[in-house]
Amino acid sequence: MVQTIYWKDNKVVMLDQSRLPLEVSYIECSSYECVADAISRLLVRGAPAIGIAASMGIAIGGLSISASDTDEFKKKISPVMDNLLNTRPTAVNIKWAVERFKKFIDTNSDKPVSELKEMLVLESINVLNEDIEINKAIGEWGAQFIHDGDTVLTHCNAGSLATGGYGTATAPMLIAKEQGKKFRVFADETRPVLQGARLTAWELMQSGIDVTLITDNSAGALMKKGMINLAIVGTDRTTRNGDVANKIGTYSVAVLCKEHGIPLYVSAPLSSIDFNMESGDEIPIEERASEEVTTIWGHRVAPEGVKVINMAFDVTPAKYVSAIITQKGAFRPADLFKLANEKTDLSKIRIGN
Amino acid sequence: MVQTIYWKDNKVVMLDQSRLPLEVSYIECSSYECVADAISRLLVRGAPAIGIAASMGIAIGGLSISASDTDEFKKKISPVMDNLLNTRPTAVNIKWAVERFKKFIDTNSDKPVSELKEMLVLESINVLNEDIEINKAIGEWGAQFIHDGDTVLTHCNAGSLATGGYGTATAPMLIAKEQGKKFRVFADETRPVLQGARLTAWELMQSGIDVTLITDNSAGALMKKGMINLAIVGTDRTTRNGDVANKIGTYSVAVLCKEHGIPLYVSAPLSSIDFNMESGDEIPIEERASEEVTTIWGHRVAPEGVKVINMAFDVTPAKYVSAIITQKGAFRPADLFKLANEKTDLSKIRIGN
Repeated sequence: MVQTIYWKDNKVVMLDQSRLPLEVSYIECSSYECVADAISRLLVRGAPAIGIAASMGIAIGGLSISASDTDEFKKKISPVMDNLLNTRPTAVNIKWAVERFKKFIDTNSDKPVSELKEMLVLESINVLNEDIEINKAIGEWGAQFIHDGDTVLTHCNAGSLATGGYGTATAPMLIAKEQGKKFRVFADETRPVLQGARLTAWELMQSGIDVTLITDNSAGALMKKGMINLAIVGTDRTTRNGDVANKIGTYSVAVLCKEHGIPLYVSAPLSSIDFNMESGDEIPIEERASEEVTTIWGHRVAPEGVKVINMAFDVTPAKYVSAIITQKGAFRPADLFKLANEKTDLSKIRIGN
Repeated sequence: MVQTIYWKDNKVVMLDQSRLPLEVSYIECSSYECVADAISRLLVRGAPAIGIAASMGIAIGGLSISASDTDEFKKKISPVMDNLLNTRPTAVNIKWAVERFKKFIDTNSDKPVSELKEMLVLESINVLNEDIEINKAIGEWGAQFIHDGDTVLTHCNAGSLATGGYGTATAPMLIAKEQGKKFRVFADETRPVLQGARLTAWELMQSGIDVTLITDNSAGALMKKGMINLAIVGTDRTTRNGDVANKIGTYSVAVLCKEHGIPLYVSAPLSSIDFNMESGDEIPIEERASEEVTTIWGHRVAPEGVKVINMAFDVTPAKYVSAIITQKGAFRPADLFKLANEKTDLSKIRIGN
């Protein structure tokens, strides 16, 4: 499995995703400025991976602070956090990391500064390991849906690269492979940004999974030929009723799955489920720059001045989703809201084993 | 409307489509070698347009022949025809043009050579005009399906550029515009070769039609939002039972149309209907080079060595098609086979007026 980010010898080591798949290179950061730069230049991407990078950025920023007491340390770590927050203002995972570490420092403000600094490092490694554990759990619950001889369709990149490891949509594939299952994967190239071609195809090849790249236009024809058995995708946000926001084109995959009687699974860590939002109708859809469509690697592929609609995401209604796979189990979309209640006996609503 | 190819002052004038949409330039050929070169280098593309280019190539080749009688002329025009045939061996329209002109010369072999040469020029212009007339007729029959306020989805390029003029899928749009209807068009970019982005968007802009470029991934989400009212596509081959082979991704559009209750129309000149083939199951699907998917304008977008499936076409079963629009009228796919019988009263099976 590809290692996207890890801590080594008081350095944050990150795969430079901007060079993939043409070049595999890692950058080693020994300052928080270096980590912030990597986040802002998109060398590291994917919500969970960004959260881990921010956590390790805080830890490495802490290491270089000289402070005689915790109060001074708190004052000095504050601009480190602000700097990281400013790299990508809309990335909720950076905000989440900053809040987690603020609390952590408050809780441990009785510790000597030197000990606190070490604890921050361990806590940032915890963030990474927790993410891997969540994804592994998703993989364990999800692998049951992949059978010998299957071909799995996936869309966009919800892979190891976007997380600490295992990915979300790819976790069931990696675990199924660890279980010795024989299957293959079709990766939609995922226009306009081609995350499927650039990232998913590459990381599945690295993991020894039999992957074939297809254009987004090919999924329907391949389903019609009986060449796809199930689809697994990730999600940016899933609402209380089981509606799934994910990369543009996911909804088309869902409709094609329905037409061909193919199950569609959504890998969703609990952190991506918004129990406060009733349905996908409320999710604002980001419109992105037309240049993502009209130019590819700086080469113009469409007429100057052409109008473009470039929605980053679409919403797949719950009725198209066979199951939502979380770290707590796989559930029917209609049962998803029950996870918000801590008293729910999950064993009664889980799908499969 | 864009003029793809025309005859002017004993020259064949062709739009250089390989430079679109970045540059609009025409080449003028006064020799058949020049025309053959334009065909083989894909400066001219699209089955009907290639047939017209081949016809004009034969005519311009004839002009430069000095022969004392028709027999000598026939001998000397033969290598011209062979040369054109060799430019793109699988292009049926070149074969069709060569056969048409062989017959034409045989029928008129009593004429003096100088007159025959002029007749060939007029005949090649006839080929162009006939194609335009067929497409205009498709447009007249098809325009009834476009209403004020509609948004029309199209896929790939079955436009003026692929024909002598009007195109097939675009003809109903151009005629509807001539009729003063207000509507807009969404053009799928059509990966992998991006004919929608490069050609369809460009030529509709040239014709003053309100066109918006979208990724193939966006069509479903836009249908779900109620932003698409009908789809019109072309066809490479339609079989007796109404199954439609067209650019890869057409089938996905068809399934999405069905899911949203959106009618799907196929513009098909009678020459593209294969009455000898029972169903689309018999159509061989061309697999093309993986580089079409893995590289874009020479820039690699996928990992070295990745497996690719790149089917050029897919087959949309007749049940997804609302009507097939020919130059003789619009018909339900189930009625299509009746067109093979010359005695059929078309007025009884035509859809609309």
